Amino acid sequence: MKCVKCNGNAVINIRRANAAFCKEHFNEYFTEQTLKSIKQFRMFRKTDKIMVCVSGGKDSLVLWHVLHNLGCDVTGMYIDLGINGYSDRSKEKVTAFADKFGLKTIIVDLREKGYPIPFVARRAKREDCAVCGTIKRYYFNRAAYDGGFDVVATGHNLDDEASRLLANIMHWNDEYMDNTYPVLPAGGKMLKKKVKPLVRLTERETAAFAILNGIDYVMEECPMSKGATSLIFKEALSTIEDKMAGTEIFFYTKFLERVKDKDRSKTDSDEMKICQTCGMESFMDKCTFCRLVEKVK
Amino acid sequence: MKCVKCNGNAVINIRRANAAFCKEHFNEYFTEQTLKSIKQFRMFRKTDKIMVCVSGGKDSLVLWHVLHNLGCDVTGMYIDLGINGYSDRSKEKVTAFADKFGLKTIIVDLREKGYPIPFVARRAKREDCAVCGTIKRYYFNRAAYDGGFDVVATGHNLDDEASRLLANIMHWNDEYMDNTYPVLPAGGKMLKKKVKPLVRLTERETAAFAILNGIDYVMEECPMSKGATSLIFKEALSTIEDKMAGTEIFFYTKFLERVKDKDRSKTDSDEMKICQTCGMESFMDKCTFCRLVEKVK
Repeated sequence: MKCVKCNGNAVINIRRANAAFCKEHFNEYFTEQTLKSIKQFRMFRKTDKIMVCVSGGKDSLVLWHVLHNLGCDVTGMYIDLGINGYSDRSKEKVTAFADKFGLKTIIVDLREKGYPIPFVARRAKREDCAVCGTIKRYYFNRAAYDGGFDVVATGHNLDDEASRLLANIMHWNDEYMDNTYPVLPAGGKMLKKKVKPLVRLTERETAAFAILNGIDYVMEECPMSKGATSLIFKEALSTIEDKMAGTEIFFYTKFLERVKDKDRSKTDSDEMKICQTCGMESFMDKCTFCRLVEKVK
Repeated sequence: MKCVKCNGNAVINIRRANAAFCKEHFNEYFTEQTLKSIKQFRMFRKTDKIMVCVSGGKDSLVLWHVLHNLGCDVTGMYIDLGINGYSDRSKEKVTAFADKFGLKTIIVDLREKGYPIPFVARRAKREDCAVCGTIKRYYFNRAAYDGGFDVVATGHNLDDEASRLLANIMHWNDEYMDNTYPVLPAGGKMLKKKVKPLVRLTERETAAFAILNGIDYVMEECPMSKGATSLIFKEALSTIEDKMAGTEIFFYTKFLERVKDKDRSKTDSDEMKICQTCGMESFMDKCTFCRLVEKVK
């Protein structure tokens, strides 16, 4: 297998692109695909202050790495979820990575705050993943606002987005479908714009990028996500992509084209209230996060 | 495993219905589901003259059997496609089945007509399945018109319809999506209404019905359909359904609800021409079938 660019030995074959690459040209391809999404969806400008949400997994560390290499002003934001073992190991990967490349980091520790996910879920009698979503969203929004960032970037890849789209279509969740987009606009005065620069790259490619570039990431999945429905739709998609390379990206990008003119701004600044407990913007007098953690006290 | 109706020994478990049945009550369930579709989509009336397209496979023979048992005036229409071995074996199953239950049958033999599928495909330099579709459609339409039938029924099941819908969505084939419906209206003056009474039942259930009721069908797939993309989407759907029973029928029936008010009548009688070669209605001066077989001569 030869690299299509330099005819050197290829390290990876990208079937949907009908191309194999050596390490150097795979890195180039990977960066180009990221830049293509950034430009196409006008994610941010060169001078913007970017916060990357990092979990210690391959996608978020790779995104952080790529944006840093592109010369962006980027800070990693990590939330220690308080999941014994898993959180410790993923925090280690994040701090080791930041040290190795000399990157700016913000860390929030939910154990210190008194809100480790398993504890909150148990006390609030709600599903772990739902609780985790609410709490992470809160601290990410909070940190982005407090830190004066222009934009919040996440490591969602093509498989994440296409499988979520497939799940939403098969359940005909129109509202969620409309919100499947690589850019979600800022809301109110405090909620920052959110972007997903890796949407043209698959999980396999982010993993290859990490391995080839010495990015040491936590390989285990979150132990609380076992049996998550997203994994089922990923498996189904991969069955199709395996046999008909290119179907997944066509499905996803064609969808984006169809919905590109939809208005995704959920809110007008005028509609937003201020949470009386925490001071963040909210649709109600008390925000979802504050209502959740109140149950725990 | 006990039958949910009579507490006798169950022979089949239908996970999406959260129910197991003995033979008697499975037959009842199967017939009820068929009747439900017939009524919901106003497929035909008790007095209508029905032509069932039969291939010798489980779905079409089971449909023929169920409609006959319901007291419908039903005739099986079989086309010998001229595929060596496969066609011989499937014709045998059809004639044995018709003899066993004393059913009316129409048989068209493409070898006699001079148009066996592999020959036409080779000569016309077109794909086997495309050629087969054109030729079958022609003879089914022709037989339904010549025989004065009110409606043409096919054995398409839930897996067929849901996987086709999935494929059309993933390729964003809007036009085909709009035509995914269990009833397609009559067109022009000669093309009969088409209905799919088995759309609420899966392949596994039609197979079980056939086996339990002594319906001997041809088990092999058509040798020319190997690698058909429909099989890939079926596999993906089954991955999802296996782990989330009920997703497939929700996906399909919710879609039907969403598109139920679409106009599916492709044609006004006034728009149709008469094919100058064969005399059947057509959009052009010469119909697709006549244009195809002309290449072969």
